Amino acid sequence: VNTNYCLVNDEIVAVDQAAIGINDLALQRGFGIFDYFKTLSGQPVFIDDHLERFYRSAKEMRLIVKYPPSDLKAMLKELMNKNDMPNSGIKLLLTGGYSPDGFNMGVPNLVVTQSGLPSYKSEHREGINIITHQYQRQMPSVKNIDYLMAVWLQPVIKERGADDVLYFSDNLITECPRANIFVVTGNNRVLTPANNILKGITRKQLLQLADSFDISEADITVDELKNAKEVFITSTTKNILPVKQIDDRVVGDGVRGGITGKLSQALVNIINEKTGW
Amino acid sequence: VNTNYCLVNDEIVAVDQAAIGINDLALQRGFGIFDYFKTLSGQPVFIDDHLERFYRSAKEMRLIVKYPPSDLKAMLKELMNKNDMPNSGIKLLLTGGYSPDGFNMGVPNLVVTQSGLPSYKSEHREGINIITHQYQRQMPSVKNIDYLMAVWLQPVIKERGADDVLYFSDNLITECPRANIFVVTGNNRVLTPANNILKGITRKQLLQLADSFDISEADITVDELKNAKEVFITSTTKNILPVKQIDDRVVGDGVRGGITGKLSQALVNIINEKTGW
Repeated sequence: VNTNYCLVNDEIVAVDQAAIGINDLALQRGFGIFDYFKTLSGQPVFIDDHLERFYRSAKEMRLIVKYPPSDLKAMLKELMNKNDMPNSGIKLLLTGGYSPDGFNMGVPNLVVTQSGLPSYKSEHREGINIITHQYQRQMPSVKNIDYLMAVWLQPVIKERGADDVLYFSDNLITECPRANIFVVTGNNRVLTPANNILKGITRKQLLQLADSFDISEADITVDELKNAKEVFITSTTKNILPVKQIDDRVVGDGVRGGITGKLSQALVNIINEKTGW
Repeated sequence: VNTNYCLVNDEIVAVDQAAIGINDLALQRGFGIFDYFKTLSGQPVFIDDHLERFYRSAKEMRLIVKYPPSDLKAMLKELMNKNDMPNSGIKLLLTGGYSPDGFNMGVPNLVVTQSGLPSYKSEHREGINIITHQYQRQMPSVKNIDYLMAVWLQPVIKERGADDVLYFSDNLITECPRANIFVVTGNNRVLTPANNILKGITRKQLLQLADSFDISEADITVDELKNAKEVFITSTTKNILPVKQIDDRVVGDGVRGGITGKLSQALVNIINEKTGW
């Protein structure tokens, strides 16, 4: 059995020995931010995008990262060497720190964990089922640790035979708890919600393909979603997953659409180009 | 120096040794609930109300408390004996537990801490300043650990020279992050928001004084708040604190009002009656 290691602040610790004191503000008050990137063949994917977002989330939440990006990268390399897990997901969690009074911030704690990438069944590659739920994440532009609703909804999703949930608010769709959503209209426009979302890194990469695809941000109603020709979601672990059913409604022909397929291939090419330090 | 002890599940541990593994879902996803009661002269205040709410919060969040109330009470008594801190605040925190995948719930962890009661300056007893902020807590009827906005707002509150913040939503006032609010109208009606709030135990006790006061739940607009004759907030640690200023507006005569004073005295009497196991 290989030991898995993590970082707690600047120390490398075996995961089963790693702990955070009970006065930490993430534990006591749900106050923290994180980011998550993947490694392929021992190299990080879109690392600068993820770190840029990590520092920005921290700043928006008034949390100070003790380490500049160059130090943090060195720490990540050391952890990756130690774990020797070429294909992985790495999560950087920054908490509100040990609070003097259980309410006001302390010095943030950094916890970095590395684990295997979740695998998606081939049936998921053909298309997933999602349900919709009215909800708006607070401070949506920040990758904060508030997944209260998402965790709470997991049994509901399973009961309804679905794979994920899509939030909407004021009749506009926004995002899944851990993925962005895209729709393809009848005239082959590829659209993704513009506002009140966490801007994913995979989403960002796809939006840069505007030379080859008619792809852009827009406000999208629930009706427009349900009448879309193709729908897919994007995330670091999922890349692109087609959506074949939304609530009780089949999307398009109920199979992966042509544009979804082309974008999936384009994304694989970008990932290959942009992997590495 | 006396060591302070806490409970981590059913073990009594010195606080500076107490820790939670990094895979706990409160730390990773902000998923947990809590309750908080005080002890006076070594006896708990409104203990059954607090435990009833603790188990109800757990149930609404689909968290299972491993211990029935009788066992939990015995554990609390043991902790209180060990700490020998007659006047204190005791916090029961129940987390989503160690998650198998960083997202779905595990077996909940219970962490119980005991600490000194915060003291309020005499100037606070004469009246505090609050600011208003548009926000609606998610799952408001559950005492969940989501204080993302509350913690984030602390520097704003200080910058504006205020002591606390009052949330409002759809033009109706709701609650402070850690206190309920009451207004006294021109014709001596005492009103407190009915909906979209965490129903405090102190609030509950006051609402039972309807024989002696014209006190009830109601929808209260921001305008009605600012035109109130008296305003006060309630909580376990604060009992009743008069509010003398809201944003830039002085409340009533800017001093503690007569009904606020009478209710404060009535509350002290109830606390004296209802302290003990």
